[in-house]
Amino acid sequence: MAPTTENPAKSLRLACRAGTHNGPTPGLAPGYGQANLVVVPREHAFHFLLFCQRNPKPCPVLEVTDPGDPEPRLTAPGADLRTDLPRYRIWRDGRVAEETTSLLGHWPEDAVAFLLGCSFSFEAALLAAGLPVRHIEQGRNVPMYRTTIPCQPAGPFAGPLVVSMRPMTPAQAIQAALICNRFPQSHGAPIHWGDPAALGIPDIHRPDEGDPVEIRPGEVPVFWACGVTPQAAATHAKLPWMATHSPGHMFVTDMREGG
Amino acid sequence: MAPTTENPAKSLRLACRAGTHNGPTPGLAPGYGQANLVVVPREHAFHFLLFCQRNPKPCPVLEVTDPGDPEPRLTAPGADLRTDLPRYRIWRDGRVAEETTSLLGHWPEDAVAFLLGCSFSFEAALLAAGLPVRHIEQGRNVPMYRTTIPCQPAGPFAGPLVVSMRPMTPAQAIQAALICNRFPQSHGAPIHWGDPAALGIPDIHRPDEGDPVEIRPGEVPVFWACGVTPQAAATHAKLPWMATHSPGHMFVTDMREGG
Repeated sequence: MAPTTENPAKSLRLACRAGTHNGPTPGLAPGYGQANLVVVPREHAFHFLLFCQRNPKPCPVLEVTDPGDPEPRLTAPGADLRTDLPRYRIWRDGRVAEETTSLLGHWPEDAVAFLLGCSFSFEAALLAAGLPVRHIEQGRNVPMYRTTIPCQPAGPFAGPLVVSMRPMTPAQAIQAALICNRFPQSHGAPIHWGDPAALGIPDIHRPDEGDPVEIRPGEVPVFWACGVTPQAAATHAKLPWMATHSPGHMFVTDMREGG
Repeated sequence: MAPTTENPAKSLRLACRAGTHNGPTPGLAPGYGQANLVVVPREHAFHFLLFCQRNPKPCPVLEVTDPGDPEPRLTAPGADLRTDLPRYRIWRDGRVAEETTSLLGHWPEDAVAFLLGCSFSFEAALLAAGLPVRHIEQGRNVPMYRTTIPCQPAGPFAGPLVVSMRPMTPAQAIQAALICNRFPQSHGAPIHWGDPAALGIPDIHRPDEGDPVEIRPGEVPVFWACGVTPQAAATHAKLPWMATHSPGHMFVTDMREGG
């Protein structure tokens, strides 16, 4: 029998490439860092990187590829960002024009890809500490909300902060803050807990992306800056073309999660 | 009498602007963060920002200005990066073509300025902990050395890591590492201590920039990643025009140093 030494992150990427996995990635390949994807033509790469530099909580940069190169040489050598995510969004003039399972045939010659840290990366640490991660418990995608907090703009990129939410008791939220603070590349500590209206969220049971999750008696919603924020900025930037992952359908890297 | 509520950082910047201060800045305006300056034309801004993203120890980005704007709105609102540093270098084709006390008349219309964290920012914390900062004691500029450790390249920017050096006993070096680790925006913990040859430094008494300092019996040289690294990259990039501060002659921001 052939040895099966392959890492689970690579297996998952190859399943995406082969088209046999096209669902959300929370809880998959545990212990391997997951990443948000943003792809823009070279002429917009400076301003997008500047947007990330000015908004490091939602947009912690893990890797930026050289123009035209679809291989993330640092975080997953040998992978192909055009095929190795389960699901993509193609944006035209600020709107999702298409959802697709591959960017082959859609990749501009001078495309620059950005991989941004993802909150899924700290969920293993939360679970290990005995803290609840409700959307994993419930087998759902994490709920995400557009807030009324503006990001610092950069060139054409601007828009509201997007947050992810996990319900916890106040005591659990304190523990989670201490744990997540050790993961600055994965959005770090939460930015808020309690009243959703303070962030301009009208209805906690109706997320803008992902699925609603149960909030139990004694729990409050806890909010983290979210890597879907660039998708709100895409709406504002109205570039003729850009691409992102589909929310919850992340790129799984070879980076082992520490903390 | 007019009240003198002005902060010492602003006073120092205005002295630079007026031409009454043109010397090194270590130890000046204590408690205010100091920054390295790099200015490139817009067309090279993406690759320079990417160089910083790929080399965060020597190049921690504090602020990037919008193209053409000489005001660092985040770190020192109202300041002018063309006049408020004591001394600049103008680079042409990879060489220092000129040292000057002002960039007025040299500032391209689409110039993008980068402010990078500086080790001088943690020196107040070292002094407060009773650790020696020899070049301040001796009234000199900090010694800096080109190493044989390559940076991660980005576009035209490539070259060796440059380090600053402070002599300490091994026990003091351990304390310094713990303190500096709290300042990731100021190069963080040291990268090496002891044998200079391990970094490819041939003679510790002959720094490439700055001044030599005394190393006393029982002390070892302790090395930090240094914000002069982009100047080594300038040599490699050979842009027709770029500008930097002159080593040791930093931009003093309004940012209070925490840790």
